[in-house]
Amino acid sequence: MDGGNMIIQEIRVTPLAFRDPPLLNAAGVHEPWALRTIIEVITDDGLSGLGETYGDLDHLTKMRECAPALIGVDVHHTNEIYTRISAIVGDVVSDLHGLTGTSTKEKSIDRVFSPFEVALLDIRGKAAGVPVCDLLGGRVREAVPYSAYLFYKWDSHPGGTPDRFGAALDPAGLVEQAALFIKEYGFRSIKLKGGVLPPDDEIAAIRALHEAFPGVPLRLDPNTAWTPETSIRVAHELQGALQYLEDPCPEISGMADVSRNIATKLATNMCVVTPEHLPPAIASDAIQVLLLDHHYWGGLTRSAQVAALCGTFGLDLSMHSNSHLGISLAAMTHLAAATPNLTYACDTHTPWQDGQDVVAPGALRFVDGAVPVPDGPGLGVELDREALATMHEQYLTCGLTSRDDTGYMRRFDPEFVVKRGHW
Amino acid sequence: MDGGNMIIQEIRVTPLAFRDPPLLNAAGVHEPWALRTIIEVITDDGLSGLGETYGDLDHLTKMRECAPALIGVDVHHTNEIYTRISAIVGDVVSDLHGLTGTSTKEKSIDRVFSPFEVALLDIRGKAAGVPVCDLLGGRVREAVPYSAYLFYKWDSHPGGTPDRFGAALDPAGLVEQAALFIKEYGFRSIKLKGGVLPPDDEIAAIRALHEAFPGVPLRLDPNTAWTPETSIRVAHELQGALQYLEDPCPEISGMADVSRNIATKLATNMCVVTPEHLPPAIASDAIQVLLLDHHYWGGLTRSAQVAALCGTFGLDLSMHSNSHLGISLAAMTHLAAATPNLTYACDTHTPWQDGQDVVAPGALRFVDGAVPVPDGPGLGVELDREALATMHEQYLTCGLTSRDDTGYMRRFDPEFVVKRGHW
Repeated sequence: MDGGNMIIQEIRVTPLAFRDPPLLNAAGVHEPWALRTIIEVITDDGLSGLGETYGDLDHLTKMRECAPALIGVDVHHTNEIYTRISAIVGDVVSDLHGLTGTSTKEKSIDRVFSPFEVALLDIRGKAAGVPVCDLLGGRVREAVPYSAYLFYKWDSHPGGTPDRFGAALDPAGLVEQAALFIKEYGFRSIKLKGGVLPPDDEIAAIRALHEAFPGVPLRLDPNTAWTPETSIRVAHELQGALQYLEDPCPEISGMADVSRNIATKLATNMCVVTPEHLPPAIASDAIQVLLLDHHYWGGLTRSAQVAALCGTFGLDLSMHSNSHLGISLAAMTHLAAATPNLTYACDTHTPWQDGQDVVAPGALRFVDGAVPVPDGPGLGVELDREALATMHEQYLTCGLTSRDDTGYMRRFDPEFVVKRGHW
Repeated sequence: MDGGNMIIQEIRVTPLAFRDPPLLNAAGVHEPWALRTIIEVITDDGLSGLGETYGDLDHLTKMRECAPALIGVDVHHTNEIYTRISAIVGDVVSDLHGLTGTSTKEKSIDRVFSPFEVALLDIRGKAAGVPVCDLLGGRVREAVPYSAYLFYKWDSHPGGTPDRFGAALDPAGLVEQAALFIKEYGFRSIKLKGGVLPPDDEIAAIRALHEAFPGVPLRLDPNTAWTPETSIRVAHELQGALQYLEDPCPEISGMADVSRNIATKLATNMCVVTPEHLPPAIASDAIQVLLLDHHYWGGLTRSAQVAALCGTFGLDLSMHSNSHLGISLAAMTHLAAATPNLTYACDTHTPWQDGQDVVAPGALRFVDGAVPVPDGPGLGVELDREALATMHEQYLTCGLTSRDDTGYMRRFDPEFVVKRGHW
């Protein structure tokens, strides 16, 4: 027997920025830089663990306030860590960019807690010599399927040079984008970020994808851009073409209205994003699929608990993604690998990173659209310190401190309105 | 870094029997011997872990069928172990003695899985040098409060010699029993096993306890002996005297009827005993307190998940007990210590063991009615091999293979009927 207490001795909180293409959504358009924060936890016996989370300044500030308060705590004592973070975050409900749904007090705490919890599991896995998925019950699948995450997009940021992905502003452009992603990653299901064009245009896009990739499961996510009435109409028109329809309209009550009137499953990462949303959503049968996201469901263990709850109540599971790097991809993969009832392909923004990462190459790869569970202990990824330094420098110089898709869009289209229950 | 794979190399399944007093309940009376099964899991690197479960023959047979199928599996891979046990247990719904509620397919699997899971956590804790509660998020309380678990009882088994607890067949006898337990263990709450005498007699007993121990929280558990109408009447008569009323009548629907008509919280370990019971119980607000029991909720991790679900839906938590030994008491204590929302004192039959145990003395003790979390790694208890051998010998010679409170009672009272919705 060895081991015993492993005490948190140091925590490093490093914000960074990486280049992001002009991806369109209901809130506007991705800015040229995506922001993330990397957490490194170091123990008294020299083990270190990694976590990754949002880079928005309010959130970053909370992380920086919380980190010193966790020094001296044993890496196993996540209840204590949650208590300390709760005390610091307090009753302040901080919102991020809105695309991860409404915020609550508990969600604000869970979001800060998450990357620390992931880093501690990384440490515990390294100490035990086992992958993080083994701390969550062990893998039920050797590789985790992800979906091709299509976006309407411009060919370049205004004034910039075109990226290699090209423009996608019509069905043909999306089909081309899907073909590229499938060729490069082998994806076997497709998600389209909608809420950008009028619903009939997005219906046409789904039909074109359905025709171009017969048998490939399709999902459409308009990020609450529609009314319940429109949502019902689109679902009827696309009957049989969609694996599920994600967040067509705002609010649990709106989703429940839609759900009663359609045969297609409804999924969400916007109206059910924290424990207090689960009882009303379940009582009203508002959703059939929950998109887990450990970044705001309080880390991997709490996400596994939510997954168990979904199993108990007959909710299916998929997984949500915001722009992220390899630490998050590793964490998502370990969680999904160890969650028996997570049976849908997960979302990932990985292709849009286009090779940028803070983790050393080799640990994460896509095989037939799926990421094999990393072999190494813990998360199985190592920090690329040079890349971290470069990306931190980019953070310091890029001029962005919080994500603002709407403000950026309005620089080019002053009349732009966020599409919430819009069509 | 060390560790890595720890492979299950051997599993020992040992049934045993220990002396049990003639405790009365709605199903009859405890037989002279209580049966349990001890699980020892040994890994390829020589670590061993302990689990404890029921001793009834059907269940024991399932354990013996499953044990060989788990050889060669890594101790972390509980998903794989659950899958293998599910395949062996299959669709057979096996019932135990009825006092842990109705059985379902999932409960039958969870009940077999549980002691293996506890033993694997014991091993993982030992390997990491940390207590099992640290594998569940860490302790939120240093000691876990238990309640004085009172029973109506005879002074001896028919034909036997009186035990040191004496008879308790009226309020005065119960008050005396409570005083003894509080003196010896320091308990600060009291539970009365009811369903034995007509409801008015048990009302009188609670009133006597309330008067004798002012301010001490009281609970009454008639094990579904009453109709909903009687349950409502008793709850009204005891308004303010009970912390909660446990399983007054059968079925979720019956409990929901009662719940709508009383102010006292309703608790259960009989109508909600497996995941599929949770949605209907929650939808109908049938209960306000769930009594967790890791022996049939599928071990400690799954119980923690159920606890999280209860937190999400606003259900309070307490903990259920059947006759048990020290391995179970240790497991219950670790789980309760790491479960923030388990705020009621837990049930335990420990006093009725009267010193008999399979674990070496010293690790478990009561201080002011609470068990301090054992200090050692894993469960923190060690097998007393001499005691195990003696108790196994008792199992072989006692003549019992399954618990049958009703059959035993009918030997002395052939007209005895199980009190289910009886009064």
